[in-house]
Amino acid sequence: MTDPKQQLDPHASLAGAQSVSEEEIFQAHLGGKLSVELGSPLVDRRDLSIAYTPGVAQVSRAIAGNPEIAKSHTWASRLVAVVSDGTAVLGLGDIGASASLPVMEGKSALFRRFAGLNSIPIVLDTTDVDEIVETLVRISPSFGAVNLEDVSAPRCFELEQRLIEALDMPVMHDDQHGTAIVVLAALTNAARVVGKELGSLKVAILGAGSAGIAVTEILLAVGVEDIVLLDSRGIISRDRGDLTGFKRDIAERTNPRSLSGGTAEALAGADVFIGVSSGKVPEEHVVSMAADSIVFALSNPDPEIDPAIAVKHAAVVATGRSDFPNQINNVLAFPGVFRGALDAGARRITQGMKIAAAQAIADLVPQPARADVIVPNPFTPGVAEAVAQAVMDVARTER
Amino acid sequence: MTDPKQQLDPHASLAGAQSVSEEEIFQAHLGGKLSVELGSPLVDRRDLSIAYTPGVAQVSRAIAGNPEIAKSHTWASRLVAVVSDGTAVLGLGDIGASASLPVMEGKSALFRRFAGLNSIPIVLDTTDVDEIVETLVRISPSFGAVNLEDVSAPRCFELEQRLIEALDMPVMHDDQHGTAIVVLAALTNAARVVGKELGSLKVAILGAGSAGIAVTEILLAVGVEDIVLLDSRGIISRDRGDLTGFKRDIAERTNPRSLSGGTAEALAGADVFIGVSSGKVPEEHVVSMAADSIVFALSNPDPEIDPAIAVKHAAVVATGRSDFPNQINNVLAFPGVFRGALDAGARRITQGMKIAAAQAIADLVPQPARADVIVPNPFTPGVAEAVAQAVMDVARTER
Repeated sequence: MTDPKQQLDPHASLAGAQSVSEEEIFQAHLGGKLSVELGSPLVDRRDLSIAYTPGVAQVSRAIAGNPEIAKSHTWASRLVAVVSDGTAVLGLGDIGASASLPVMEGKSALFRRFAGLNSIPIVLDTTDVDEIVETLVRISPSFGAVNLEDVSAPRCFELEQRLIEALDMPVMHDDQHGTAIVVLAALTNAARVVGKELGSLKVAILGAGSAGIAVTEILLAVGVEDIVLLDSRGIISRDRGDLTGFKRDIAERTNPRSLSGGTAEALAGADVFIGVSSGKVPEEHVVSMAADSIVFALSNPDPEIDPAIAVKHAAVVATGRSDFPNQINNVLAFPGVFRGALDAGARRITQGMKIAAAQAIADLVPQPARADVIVPNPFTPGVAEAVAQAVMDVARTER
Repeated sequence: MTDPKQQLDPHASLAGAQSVSEEEIFQAHLGGKLSVELGSPLVDRRDLSIAYTPGVAQVSRAIAGNPEIAKSHTWASRLVAVVSDGTAVLGLGDIGASASLPVMEGKSALFRRFAGLNSIPIVLDTTDVDEIVETLVRISPSFGAVNLEDVSAPRCFELEQRLIEALDMPVMHDDQHGTAIVVLAALTNAARVVGKELGSLKVAILGAGSAGIAVTEILLAVGVEDIVLLDSRGIISRDRGDLTGFKRDIAERTNPRSLSGGTAEALAGADVFIGVSSGKVPEEHVVSMAADSIVFALSNPDPEIDPAIAVKHAAVVATGRSDFPNQINNVLAFPGVFRGALDAGARRITQGMKIAAAQAIADLVPQPARADVIVPNPFTPGVAEAVAQAVMDVARTER
């Protein structure tokens, strides 16, 4: 946990912090990043007669008689479809299905690496929610879970909900809930570092897209009462006449002090700033926060405020970047969440499972937590296993 | 090529010829037969920053600017989707998508084993041709070729044609064309064994489903003029009033002697019998064939006539079974055909490519061909490579 690369150098430049060359990145992507391999080798005719005809007919016939056998004797029930329509790819926006593929392949690689799960990218040449639901329902016998990825807001909220209702399997939009889980884990330890109660924190969240809404929801669910959410027009409040749909709904459940304005008003006296936008926060707004403030500037690759500046004023600073301490990285959450849900045979990934996952991640950090180590790093052994166990434990009580 | 298991024992019983226990088959299918693996290991943060964020963003951005880069820098352009709606699974019939999965996994395993191709099963919870086409078009950025499998006739003809038109990638219904290619390869060598010209053969084909129609088409394409095709009602002729669609069409191009009746009339004096049905042919009809007759009794697991009986009257006998000589096995064809089409960047799998594939398979048998070795066995080294090369050569001339 004392990886020297984790030490924060306040003079480090954000530019050029990644030491990987473009050439190396493209070389690593040649031909794609995944391969489909055989569970056991096909050496001779006997192997062939087991894995293919005529032997395979016995397994197919058995499934035709009892569909449950498909769960144990095919790969589908534990196969995660990593699904995207390419409308909100990383910070690149609506770049389309093909351009989203390298991200989805990367995601599948992480499922294998961290949770031992098989996973295939399914990218869609349609952005119509009805068509996406219809398409996934039609091919749903092919897989056992759906990791939605890089779908733009607000469509992502409806799409996830519709898929949860239409598919008899775990479905999770990782940009929402993966982020929310790791933010909650990080905030749990950050609160411990500064000696504040989680429920008493005044939290300002910049960005009311997929991540901002999901972070708000999970913080509300664990009892954080004073959350101020900002979109590109400023603080979301019941008084704003321009809100519709999910923003109207979230306005009813946040901003108890009825603030209005922008980041200046939201951050003044706040204990926590969480940036999940592509916006910027000036240094003086961070200075205006409460004593022992917590700053999560998660926009990637350019944090809402340079962490080397934020750390001068805040007690705990986290980013989405791997080259600074406290990386808020979804990979801490999603592999174990899906593994746990599949191991438990759960049909839903519930808010209770997500909170338990966050708790498990938080508890993997040596306690008392240090300001520069509030989350494990992705390669900390046992993260996915601990998350999966926590999710399974909840699944058992919720059954 | 002199595998002792290949020697025909005329006293062998067909029942119990497979020595694999049910327990062993089910054990081999536990958890499925495939896994998705990483192209290169993810060991540390640097690897993660190449395969996933932030490095992957550069590849996604490059594809957004130039879609061609998706072909070289993702796995999709060389990924074969093995697609089925489960309507005609092996000899089991319409058993549904989930029950077809073990077969599709086996197919994917064969693509990896014999052609080094990545492949994923996509099984469909719809049997509507319009919906299947629509669904595959929507997910088509996810893969680079479609192996249609176990789709019932006559729907399979329309479905394949519609997919060929809708998708900008190689599409082949293996039950049709994989079978046709290997039958043509086998018949080429069988004709050599008996010293007859391919084009002069009188051929009777029992079964006018996917395989029967495709075998007829490829034999017509190589100049076989006298083909008599039979469906469950008997010989297909221009005089039959009950024919519609593709059977009406094939009636115009076969049966030049205007035969009518059943297998008795079709086999009398015929040089070749090809069974691709679940029907039966009595021994006396085989006796009535021309001298030095050729019998391909390909129904699986129960050939149209016991090969141990057929061999008493025919000069060359082949089956679809691995426990008798001359197994007509699609695995000789489809891995190399798709490999060659993908290597050549071909958008279509043409009749010319299929004929070249058959020729390549035929030529892999040591010449002069022996009656009990008219096709290579699936593990003969170099089959897929030779087929792929032949397909590529044709692709270049057709471009």
